Amino acid sequence: MTVSAMSATPKKSLKLFSGRSHPDLAEEVAKQLDVTVTPQAAYEFANGEIFVRYDESVRGCDAFVIQSHSQPINDAIMEQLIMVDALKRGSAKRITAVVPFYGYARQDKKHKGREPISARLMADMFKTAGADRILTVDLHTDQIMGFFDGPVDHLFAQTVLSDYIRDNHSDRDITVVSPDSGRVRVAEKWADNLGGTPLAFIHKTRDPTKPNQVVANRVVGDVEGRLCVVVDDMIDTGGTITKATEQLLAAGASDVIIAATHGVLSGPAVDRLSSCGAREVVLTNTLPIPEERRFHNLTVLSAAPLVARAIHQVFEDGSVTGLFDGHS
Amino acid sequence: MTVSAMSATPKKSLKLFSGRSHPDLAEEVAKQLDVTVTPQAAYEFANGEIFVRYDESVRGCDAFVIQSHSQPINDAIMEQLIMVDALKRGSAKRITAVVPFYGYARQDKKHKGREPISARLMADMFKTAGADRILTVDLHTDQIMGFFDGPVDHLFAQTVLSDYIRDNHSDRDITVVSPDSGRVRVAEKWADNLGGTPLAFIHKTRDPTKPNQVVANRVVGDVEGRLCVVVDDMIDTGGTITKATEQLLAAGASDVIIAATHGVLSGPAVDRLSSCGAREVVLTNTLPIPEERRFHNLTVLSAAPLVARAIHQVFEDGSVTGLFDGHS
Amino acid sequence: MTVSAMSATPKKSLKLFSGRSHPDLAEEVAKQLDVTVTPQAAYEFANGEIFVRYDESVRGCDAFVIQSHSQPINDAIMEQLIMVDALKRGSAKRITAVVPFYGYARQDKKHKGREPISARLMADMFKTAGADRILTVDLHTDQIMGFFDGPVDHLFAQTVLSDYIRDNHSDRDITVVSPDSGRVRVAEKWADNLGGTPLAFIHKTRDPTKPNQVVANRVVGDVEGRLCVVVDDMIDTGGTITKATEQLLAAGASDVIIAATHGVLSGPAVDRLSSCGAREVVLTNTLPIPEERRFHNLTVLSAAPLVARAIHQVFEDGSVTGLFDGHS
Amino acid sequence: MTVSAMSATPKKSLKLFSGRSHPDLAEEVAKQLDVTVTPQAAYEFANGEIFVRYDESVRGCDAFVIQSHSQPINDAIMEQLIMVDALKRGSAKRITAVVPFYGYARQDKKHKGREPISARLMADMFKTAGADRILTVDLHTDQIMGFFDGPVDHLFAQTVLSDYIRDNHSDRDITVVSPDSGRVRVAEKWADNLGGTPLAFIHKTRDPTKPNQVVANRVVGDVEGRLCVVVDDMIDTGGTITKATEQLLAAGASDVIIAATHGVLSGPAVDRLSSCGAREVVLTNTLPIPEERRFHNLTVLSAAPLVARAIHQVFEDGSVTGLFDGHS
Amino acid sequence: MTVSAMSATPKKSLKLFSGRSHPDLAEEVAKQLDVTVTPQAAYEFANGEIFVRYDESVRGCDAFVIQSHSQPINDAIMEQLIMVDALKRGSAKRITAVVPFYGYARQDKKHKGREPISARLMADMFKTAGADRILTVDLHTDQIMGFFDGPVDHLFAQTVLSDYIRDNHSDRDITVVSPDSGRVRVAEKWADNLGGTPLAFIHKTRDPTKPNQVVANRVVGDVEGRLCVVVDDMIDTGGTITKATEQLLAAGASDVIIAATHGVLSGPAVDRLSSCGAREVVLTNTLPIPEERRFHNLTVLSAAPLVARAIHQVFEDGSVTGLFDGHS
Amino acid sequence: MTVSAMSATPKKSLKLFSGRSHPDLAEEVAKQLDVTVTPQAAYEFANGEIFVRYDESVRGCDAFVIQSHSQPINDAIMEQLIMVDALKRGSAKRITAVVPFYGYARQDKKHKGREPISARLMADMFKTAGADRILTVDLHTDQIMGFFDGPVDHLFAQTVLSDYIRDNHSDRDITVVSPDSGRVRVAEKWADNLGGTPLAFIHKTRDPTKPNQVVANRVVGDVEGRLCVVVDDMIDTGGTITKATEQLLAAGASDVIIAATHGVLSGPAVDRLSSCGAREVVLTNTLPIPEERRFHNLTVLSAAPLVARAIHQVFEDGSVTGLFDGHS
Repeated sequence: MTVSAMSATPKKSLKLFSGRSHPDLAEEVAKQLDVTVTPQAAYEFANGEIFVRYDESVRGCDAFVIQSHSQPINDAIMEQLIMVDALKRGSAKRITAVVPFYGYARQDKKHKGREPISARLMADMFKTAGADRILTVDLHTDQIMGFFDGPVDHLFAQTVLSDYIRDNHSDRDITVVSPDSGRVRVAEKWADNLGGTPLAFIHKTRDPTKPNQVVANRVVGDVEGRLCVVVDDMIDTGGTITKATEQLLAAGASDVIIAATHGVLSGPAVDRLSSCGAREVVLTNTLPIPEERRFHNLTVLSAAPLVARAIHQVFEDGSVTGLFDGHS
Repeated sequence: MTVSAMSATPKKSLKLFSGRSHPDLAEEVAKQLDVTVTPQAAYEFANGEIFVRYDESVRGCDAFVIQSHSQPINDAIMEQLIMVDALKRGSAKRITAVVPFYGYARQDKKHKGREPISARLMADMFKTAGADRILTVDLHTDQIMGFFDGPVDHLFAQTVLSDYIRDNHSDRDITVVSPDSGRVRVAEKWADNLGGTPLAFIHKTRDPTKPNQVVANRVVGDVEGRLCVVVDDMIDTGGTITKATEQLLAAGASDVIIAATHGVLSGPAVDRLSSCGAREVVLTNTLPIPEERRFHNLTVLSAAPLVARAIHQVFEDGSVTGLFDGHS
Repeated sequence: MTVSAMSATPKKSLKLFSGRSHPDLAEEVAKQLDVTVTPQAAYEFANGEIFVRYDESVRGCDAFVIQSHSQPINDAIMEQLIMVDALKRGSAKRITAVVPFYGYARQDKKHKGREPISARLMADMFKTAGADRILTVDLHTDQIMGFFDGPVDHLFAQTVLSDYIRDNHSDRDITVVSPDSGRVRVAEKWADNLGGTPLAFIHKTRDPTKPNQVVANRVVGDVEGRLCVVVDDMIDTGGTITKATEQLLAAGASDVIIAATHGVLSGPAVDRLSSCGAREVVLTNTLPIPEERRFHNLTVLSAAPLVARAIHQVFEDGSVTGLFDGHS
Repeated sequence: MTVSAMSATPKKSLKLFSGRSHPDLAEEVAKQLDVTVTPQAAYEFANGEIFVRYDESVRGCDAFVIQSHSQPINDAIMEQLIMVDALKRGSAKRITAVVPFYGYARQDKKHKGREPISARLMADMFKTAGADRILTVDLHTDQIMGFFDGPVDHLFAQTVLSDYIRDNHSDRDITVVSPDSGRVRVAEKWADNLGGTPLAFIHKTRDPTKPNQVVANRVVGDVEGRLCVVVDDMIDTGGTITKATEQLLAAGASDVIIAATHGVLSGPAVDRLSSCGAREVVLTNTLPIPEERRFHNLTVLSAAPLVARAIHQVFEDGSVTGLFDGHS
Repeated sequence: MTVSAMSATPKKSLKLFSGRSHPDLAEEVAKQLDVTVTPQAAYEFANGEIFVRYDESVRGCDAFVIQSHSQPINDAIMEQLIMVDALKRGSAKRITAVVPFYGYARQDKKHKGREPISARLMADMFKTAGADRILTVDLHTDQIMGFFDGPVDHLFAQTVLSDYIRDNHSDRDITVVSPDSGRVRVAEKWADNLGGTPLAFIHKTRDPTKPNQVVANRVVGDVEGRLCVVVDDMIDTGGTITKATEQLLAAGASDVIIAATHGVLSGPAVDRLSSCGAREVVLTNTLPIPEERRFHNLTVLSAAPLVARAIHQVFEDGSVTGLFDGHS
Repeated sequence: MTVSAMSATPKKSLKLFSGRSHPDLAEEVAKQLDVTVTPQAAYEFANGEIFVRYDESVRGCDAFVIQSHSQPINDAIMEQLIMVDALKRGSAKRITAVVPFYGYARQDKKHKGREPISARLMADMFKTAGADRILTVDLHTDQIMGFFDGPVDHLFAQTVLSDYIRDNHSDRDITVVSPDSGRVRVAEKWADNLGGTPLAFIHKTRDPTKPNQVVANRVVGDVEGRLCVVVDDMIDTGGTITKATEQLLAAGASDVIIAATHGVLSGPAVDRLSSCGAREVVLTNTLPIPEERRFHNLTVLSAAPLVARAIHQVFEDGSVTGLFDGHS
């Protein structure tokens, strides 16, 4: 006798996908999770159009698509969007865009009229392509979480960095320094993580008679004779942070350590960082840093354990909140 | 002979609507625009449900609905949403929610997991109700502009305040002070507006052995013998800003002026502000400040000219960008 | 050897959340379900902005958020919306807004132009916030089910009331009475539930020379010497229903019982109901009725078993339809 | 010298489009508006797929697409949806679906579980196809206005009918009768329009031992010796309304007039209406009533002036509200 | 002791639903899947409005709604949309619209301006009604997959046909022929499936002095003395394909077989096909072909095994891709 | 006395914006329209993030944003999306994305499972960013029009090419040739434009024992002694079309002309085209072809007049349909 319905017990299955921007990180995450990255064909047409096809069925899987938005950044983003589209059309059950470094994060507001808010546009495009969720690390501003219409798991790799500093320099008198006025709150979190150190920041003053021209940078706060840890979420060309380093040393700092989550390291960044006088530059590998761009005073910590643990918890419906509190 | 189509020359017509939270501001804006607030019936059912009906046709109009999110704040927001819905269903051509003070702006990110991002929720609800655009003043964080899927005209009343300070105290040695680490960037804009003054901020230090407990507030920056202008976007209970005032005076400041755009003034705010030792407290009227809550050292500047000018330019498709640059 | 995917067996987990409008009902429902209400922090900022944070992870849960829209009604609705947003952003798998009394239900159409349809707006806002489904009780009009773009489980507490009447007054000659012309269909369902009793209603006549002015209320139908059960979905100020009661008694009814699902009981309701001559007023507890507002002839029946059973069936994918048919 | 922008003065242009379900009404409306229906090709492919192409440009026009949902009803609806799609893709500026009779209006709620709410589905499909607004006449229930996410202009042709009755029978003692319990509110509006006449309705009683079986229909209210006007929004097969007529006559009514806006007139309707004993049956032409289905005691009033006037006011941004109040 | 959450192990349950357009196919699919079609009430109101109610709960089920878009085609489509709406509102977990023949597929682009793209409109309406996915067979053009915002499983019944030809005529010299220039690519796939046969097509030439008038049809390619298999996705009136057959025979083809997936067979199709000289006409049963329309040289192959297997794989999250590659 | 509303006569203003991918075309279009391209700042951040700010107000304008999707293609697309976002947030009234060459058009369907449909994704992203309409030229397949949820103006530059061939070679015996089986329909339109010439195409045959391997290319149709015009929408690497050229010459064609709208000209294209034996290669400038990539037998026709005329008509609400019919 036939029956009205066919029953089955559902299974759930985590699959990891990786774009081509930062395969090493994806491999490291896969290893931590004890899975393999799902095999795929991914290539460009002759005119640069990206094409992706997965080599095995993705139906019903809980898909995590890792892509860090490294250079060439628009290719990296477009590839991830196309991968998400292919997963949606291939009937993945849930799609999480894993974005260790979220591109266009600095364009999170209009400074003047007639500007885009590209960080919101990116969030909307991930939604449009079919991403149900975003998992990302140390956003440029926390408000970007609110740009996505769905869950955003926001991991704090900053604590990986601050733990490293604490473990290695707990005997020093530390001042945490923000390289500009807009990041003082981030520096304060660092100061808390390091046990309540003093804070300082660099104040750019402008000449009122010459609009938009910075005339001087003042160090505000107590830095003389102290180990200054200059902190930021990312280092792009390194101009601001290395200039800050020089000013701190000029102002009597005994030593400077530069620490940031995302090593964008564009253009002159390597030269500046290696010659600015900083004792050490500490970054994570949320972005690829190829061997040839690594320099003598650079330390790279891995963000893979943090990302892998978060993916595992998302899959298992555990709580990722523990990964946020600075003592993961 | 009949013809295929009927032709006409379109007209456009600005209509101003006002919720019941801050009628004085709406009247002042209307006067500046040389229009009257559109008459309406607005009342509560016995159980508090809000009802609105417009007394004249709203078809095809360019509607501006003013409502400041004052207390009781959820009533103010719901009334504005309902007004927008009635305009949408009544065939208004374009609907701008004018929000001099944007409620829930402080809930612009998740601090921990399992929290709402209510500032985004508000933006989405205005969209859902039918608002095409938002016009607002001095948002708690600029990123909230990106929470709305459409144009946001973000006016800077801060310049109304800083012009006032400059006009009245140009002979003094001013230091601009941020009451906490997260608002230093705002203070820096003030410093620029005042001609490149020094900056300072209050640094909350926490005891590493006692999580989340502030053990001390340090003044970072140069304040001794100077006129300190403590600035913020809003004053709610006034606790942080009045404590900052006391610390600045203790640290040798010669005088303290408190300046903020939005006078929320909840609970003990009036007592604290009138007795904290500040020489003057300068606010705008983006929120209603009834006579009985005005105190001896309070100065209230009007935001109505700024809002009216912006509405007029939006209606005329002029550029509002000029209203942003600090020297409107 | 690592493998391509990680597999697991999914579990599903019901979690109950409660806003602060009617905790007693939530507790009663929780007890029926043998679960506890999920602990949370919920409070207002000084200016009335509501804040909610859940004390435990909500990832992957099947969330039911109970909030009855009692007074202050806009606070109750906003709190529920914010709770839903927090669940969405916290990765709840499915979110059901449980709304024992659905606010703004009477604003379900435009009576004239330029009015809102607030009952639709509420439905859209729940959707926008992230609610997948709504579970509600005795809507003012059934069409409101169609305002929500998703499943609405519409429970009939009316049968709880009619069962009570039948059990206690089966020996009487009953006439079911609608207090106005728009609710006669509801009264007819009652009449069916009570075994085919006669019907009556109150007809408001208006003076054609004086628009919108009611000049007389006529009893239409046979009430003399009978037990009249005057029925409605809700009692707000009680004006209509107590006037109906008086007219029925004047028209020779031997006794009057008032029965309604939702005891809004605004303003003069308690006075009117306790003194109108009705032998008994029967309500359910879909809305809170505090001790001090309970009066001598009031009977309150619990809707909690009905709500709990529905939640359980929704969770278990059983059929709620049985709860609709009047003989649950 | 070239300049940055090209300027022009916008014009607006009303264009009327008509599906093939009720061309007479469209022509009559066009004549009232002094325009012609826009020429088009409209036909079926051999397998019944509908195709439409407009013969002239529709760019930038204010398009009104008239289609009454007459039988075959799904073809009528689909044709209108396809016409709206073609207008959207052809760059019409604004699209109003003019629906003199709105199909599926009776399916406005779930009576039991696992039913559709097709009236909402229709509203959503018009939105999806590209309709900005709906203009309709005497909806089965007013709440359907809330099913559409946008402006709905809801015209009251009922007043065309009641004016006719008043003009012709003002000397009679009238009772307005609702043919069932769910339409008493509609009848009450009629009674008001006729100057405050008495009301009555037919009460279906069911045998409690035999679920869903009507055992008797009772006349509730005063009808003896009076002219009964039985009113409804539509007459489909006419079963209910002609049975009501017979009961009223049996109950002593001196005369019966049947009045309804929409003459669906399916199956046995013509036979029943022409032989039920009603003195007159009054309908409007919101639906086509071909000559061969017109019977001796039928009066058809035109809804075209009402619809034309509303279209004109929508185009001119005048107020349609006046058309609602019963004395247009 | 009560606990915070209630846990359970989810089950998943496939349920098959069928509209009334092609019950035989649904039954055959059900049999293949060893389930029964879910019982329901489905009928028309007197005016043709379709009504559906399921006889058992659909909560949480994985619903597959089979409806082929046969004539009357708008009724078939509307019924399926309404069935999907009822499933959405009845809390089905996932809804797949199974569309063996997808109506309006030929209207997949604008040929001129001011035309609809009805194939996209249909896709959007299924989305609006609540379909999560579409499962369909041999779309008129593959791009229609991209019209739906979600997964489309596109089955290739063409291989059922080409396998049949290969099995029965492998000893013949075959030329695959496209009946017009737009289907040559489809014919090439056939040629590949048959082992690399030659290709031909019919070229319609137009007289440049008489726009849009076809003056001659030329056979392009080698057909003399060969078995010509004329292929298409569907046969509607059969005009093009039977004219092609006659031309091929006139051009010396030794035999002609007509093969197509969808037997629409409108109007003169049966006459034309049975008398055009083709040796055999091979179709599948994606559309109903009643006994009385079957003719001597017609062969009907069943698509049910293909559809059943795909449904099973979608339910089990297996890969349907294997069903695409021509050698299922 | 103040009045209720402020009135004004609306103006409309066309503004042209250009991304940086093909400024020459934008300039040429601007010149044709007698406007200037709106000045803007557009540059990359050091890490490649694109930034755009308009130098003048865009409020209320009818914006046309020209960007051809040339290489690097993802940068070109992203820049256009960001420009559209900035226009939306800057209150442009209507935004048309002008895309002379639409990237990712070849990815318009899934060939196998687990592939993206990137052409649809692009359409959705333009919608998400805020584009109201798309204006494009010679899409790879017409169905892509249906991928966008809004008006698409699809211009036919093919006629610019065929007019050129007719004007220069009307004395020759022409055969129009499709380089593969999927483009025969396009070739047939060419044949019609040229006055009803014969057609031919290249048939790729595959070895049934070696899947997916092309073993031979046959010329199907009459080419001997004739001038073959090989036509396609785009030339990417030129492999297919130059191989076709060689085969046609080998098959006895007296001469070959290659004609295509879009000169993508990737990698070896220039070498192949200049040495394949074709007498002439005719392209348009929908994509930039820098001087150094132009070769001896290349002719480039301008698409600017076509695009400019279409923009002008869209702005003026004229009909663009005339631009479609091959004799613009």
